[in-house]
Amino acid sequence: MTASLLRADVAALAPYVPGDQPREAGWVKLNTNEHPDVLPGITDAVRAALDEQVRLYPDPTCSALRDHLAERYGVPPEQIIVGNGSDELLALTLRACVDPGERVVTPYPTYSVYRTLAEIHGAQLLEIDSDDRFALPVDELVRAGGRVTFIAHPNAPTGKPVTHDEMAALCAGLNGVVVTDEAYVDFGATSMLSLLSHHPNLLITRTMSKGFGLAGLRIGYAFGSDELIGGLYKVKDSYNVNRLSQAAGIAALAQYELAMAANRRLARRRDELAEILRTTFGWRVWPSATNFLLVEPQPQPAAEVYAALRARRVLVRYFHQRRLERYLRISIGSESDHVALVGALREVVA
Amino acid sequence: MTASLLRADVAALAPYVPGDQPREAGWVKLNTNEHPDVLPGITDAVRAALDEQVRLYPDPTCSALRDHLAERYGVPPEQIIVGNGSDELLALTLRACVDPGERVVTPYPTYSVYRTLAEIHGAQLLEIDSDDRFALPVDELVRAGGRVTFIAHPNAPTGKPVTHDEMAALCAGLNGVVVTDEAYVDFGATSMLSLLSHHPNLLITRTMSKGFGLAGLRIGYAFGSDELIGGLYKVKDSYNVNRLSQAAGIAALAQYELAMAANRRLARRRDELAEILRTTFGWRVWPSATNFLLVEPQPQPAAEVYAALRARRVLVRYFHQRRLERYLRISIGSESDHVALVGALREVVA
Repeated sequence: MTASLLRADVAALAPYVPGDQPREAGWVKLNTNEHPDVLPGITDAVRAALDEQVRLYPDPTCSALRDHLAERYGVPPEQIIVGNGSDELLALTLRACVDPGERVVTPYPTYSVYRTLAEIHGAQLLEIDSDDRFALPVDELVRAGGRVTFIAHPNAPTGKPVTHDEMAALCAGLNGVVVTDEAYVDFGATSMLSLLSHHPNLLITRTMSKGFGLAGLRIGYAFGSDELIGGLYKVKDSYNVNRLSQAAGIAALAQYELAMAANRRLARRRDELAEILRTTFGWRVWPSATNFLLVEPQPQPAAEVYAALRARRVLVRYFHQRRLERYLRISIGSESDHVALVGALREVVA
Repeated sequence: MTASLLRADVAALAPYVPGDQPREAGWVKLNTNEHPDVLPGITDAVRAALDEQVRLYPDPTCSALRDHLAERYGVPPEQIIVGNGSDELLALTLRACVDPGERVVTPYPTYSVYRTLAEIHGAQLLEIDSDDRFALPVDELVRAGGRVTFIAHPNAPTGKPVTHDEMAALCAGLNGVVVTDEAYVDFGATSMLSLLSHHPNLLITRTMSKGFGLAGLRIGYAFGSDELIGGLYKVKDSYNVNRLSQAAGIAALAQYELAMAANRRLARRRDELAEILRTTFGWRVWPSATNFLLVEPQPQPAAEVYAALRARRVLVRYFHQRRLERYLRISIGSESDHVALVGALREVVA
């Protein structure tokens, strides 16, 4: 036996730690930005797809779902790829575009999966700090010259959207790929889709986990130039999206208007919750264009509030990370989730 | 813009071409080794899982399904990982164990996805020809010293199983990982599971696509040492297996005896079809421990028979590959599939 069966990089790797997914019921779960509502029609559509065809491989290129995405978003089907969640598409982008040792760039703080993916890939990761207001460091990101630059729009866990001008400057200034991760765009931010035809190095990734309430079914998609999308197809597993998820994705798009109306109601609950956290508890709450809030539970330490909520079976997200130690990220849930949260906070916040 | 947004390797890559998946009905589909039968209980189990929890992320480590796998196969849960089909697990193995430029070894001919995965990964691929009887070149595979060596057991598209002694010699002789891809093992070959406790470099991959008739739901799993399985967990996407597939996998294992009985019936149909192809059409038919037959439709060229069958809406697999040009691979289907195939062959074979 050699010393290790694993790559040295992998043996040393600290894996991405997803938020808790308790298996038992009874938790108020505001820690992984899942949607409180399920769209009507999804379960019927999946039931209809649940026939003897489960024995057959799924469509390897999700043609029918891509046709529906093309119609909805005005992008030709050949500029669309569907993934097993958008996480898969982020990983495929590195695999298609970055040779080991080449540079991958992200702002900091942002979605920490980008770092994990870069480390797995053996890329050289450069993280560039945003300022105290979490503004995107556009000039430094351009100067960093990444083969791939990951930009979450809106950003997580800050909730801050990127402006159209910022994104255009990144795409124009960089030779490499700019991935705009629009996981949270369905809660009101303006998509960067209008930039797509001007910038062949722009890849826009989306998910049905957040704005369409389908985290359990793993449906992500990406829009990009023929060259980029063609590259992603070459490196994906043949049958990466199962039959039932393809059917659910089509059903979800058919309920697009309903989904967006639910998201507008969610945004109102978000703003109401922000107001309560500010006025009742005196917390600092960051503006958000997403389905979560970044809050600073002053003067109590965030870690203490996190633990006290957890003891009351209310899960929020705490990050053991530089610049985030003072914050909690709270997903926007249902009315009753918020009642439970605020009730628990009244006990926790002295 | 740079000359290319893609890695040079990827721009030059010839992607794996899966067998045709026609979207319209009416084909006799004997080209991708799908099972003709669906187990009872699967659709009910998926329906039961199809509730408002689709909005929640799936269990990232498939704990419940792994518990069932552990019980069925006598392997501790921590030595099991579940994937989005076994293709994902094959890719994860390269990602966890092989640095770019390091050597990946396969016999030839074998499942061509191994080549595609090695190329995507930027590994140095070495293919070692089997002899005219497709016997595994064990000594040369050991001498090649791969960081990862892929062995399909039974092999595809030849149908030939590996012996216990051959596999033990590979595991003992190699410092790197030996992946035993048991995709087709549920049709009667003896698993290499008994070697697992002796060889920490052995990784056994399995799928529910073949022996359990669930190709559409993408459920693969692997057994290996703590070190290997731990490495695969580090490089996988967080939520790689969706909720409904996890539920279907548990339901399929609950029908294990029924599945194996169906596979024994399928093996009898396989042997009956082999006999017809030999005696009625004078073809050479290779022995098979799988749900497909490798046949040599002499004297007619295989490509001609493939095209003539296709024109009659009967799909079999033809490989445009060295040493395989004379062969067809025919999946074992239902009784009526075989009647249709033989009927078409009576027209095609003059």
